[in-house]
Amino acid sequence: MEASLYTETGVFIAFEGGEGSGKSTQARLLAAWLEEHGHAVVLTREPGGTAVGQRLRDIVLDPATGDLSPRAEALMYIADKAEHVDHVVLPALAEGKVVITDRYVDSTLAYQGAGRALRAVELEPIARWATSGLRPHLTVVLDIDPVLGLKRAGAPDRIEREPLDFHRRVREHFVELAAADPGHYAVVAADQDPQDIHAAIQQAIAPWLVQVSA
Amino acid sequence: MEASLYTETGVFIAFEGGEGSGKSTQARLLAAWLEEHGHAVVLTREPGGTAVGQRLRDIVLDPATGDLSPRAEALMYIADKAEHVDHVVLPALAEGKVVITDRYVDSTLAYQGAGRALRAVELEPIARWATSGLRPHLTVVLDIDPVLGLKRAGAPDRIEREPLDFHRRVREHFVELAAADPGHYAVVAADQDPQDIHAAIQQAIAPWLVQVSA
Repeated sequence: MEASLYTETGVFIAFEGGEGSGKSTQARLLAAWLEEHGHAVVLTREPGGTAVGQRLRDIVLDPATGDLSPRAEALMYIADKAEHVDHVVLPALAEGKVVITDRYVDSTLAYQGAGRALRAVELEPIARWATSGLRPHLTVVLDIDPVLGLKRAGAPDRIEREPLDFHRRVREHFVELAAADPGHYAVVAADQDPQDIHAAIQQAIAPWLVQVSA
Repeated sequence: MEASLYTETGVFIAFEGGEGSGKSTQARLLAAWLEEHGHAVVLTREPGGTAVGQRLRDIVLDPATGDLSPRAEALMYIADKAEHVDHVVLPALAEGKVVITDRYVDSTLAYQGAGRALRAVELEPIARWATSGLRPHLTVVLDIDPVLGLKRAGAPDRIEREPLDFHRRVREHFVELAAADPGHYAVVAADQDPQDIHAAIQQAIAPWLVQVSA
């Protein structure tokens, strides 16, 4: 098991949440707000934050891929993370930037662990190994009832096609992870007005910005 | 750590060895010989024994992929194995077939572990987890000096472009794995006439064929 690592330069922020929770919108709003305030920001995502990751994303999200071995699926998501952390996240943090990622390790634990046949406890050591134990300073969980979230999400990809129960287990898992480490998590109700959500995230992020010069 | 698993139906044979060791040729010769003797044979390979595995193979072997995070590379190879074992190898063994795979877990330990920055001891638990602990009844190591093997191999892919020292560590690792478990390994010198190699492999495989009806 890798030790947890929080970098001393830069700020690493992850957005997590179910389908239709507005992660991508909120990540963009936060990035724009930080840039307005003079921060150097890298806005990225998993899977697909690198060229290789994009190819892996195509495989795991393409409905034509069909049934994947659950372990193969989890390992592809984790391979994407290894590439992403080594080639995007760590270099940007080393330069003192704010890195905002749309999904990180918790998504693998929630989707491939709680959601499917595998257990998060099997996956976590592999995911931590792959990411050198790197943890976000703050993870924002956008919490939403999957009935509402899936309605918002539109045309379903291979993961979104899973039954409602799957998405309920995923939601529960995110909330449990946040409850276990409140100092590094903020749970924000995602059924509010986007500007109110954005304001709540600004508040949650503020204490971490002392670590980067604007 | 998963327990080792040798199936009681079917026979699982892996070919391992460096570039230009003649694995693919010998795997084909063995498959043809077994079929002539009335066995049902599945001849397959890693990476690329499934549709998803083929897409992963394209990524890891394409010289255009460039520098990969070593962990990302290892995880893609291991994802290929998970898909391969679940969707090809285990179903065929359950039907009592002889499964011959061109590369298996040992290649990951040798190439990604001994060859690169990672240690085989980090990779093995992940590879065993991915493959449910399934072990070949017999692994045939085709042993060749990499100077000769690389000459034979022709136009180099992304892995074959590694320096000679890398290929020497890979060779050493295969031989060490074989020495540690002689009951399940046969090391055959690959610089002999192909028909002599084939004869040596027939001999090594014979004791395992009592497990399958011809």
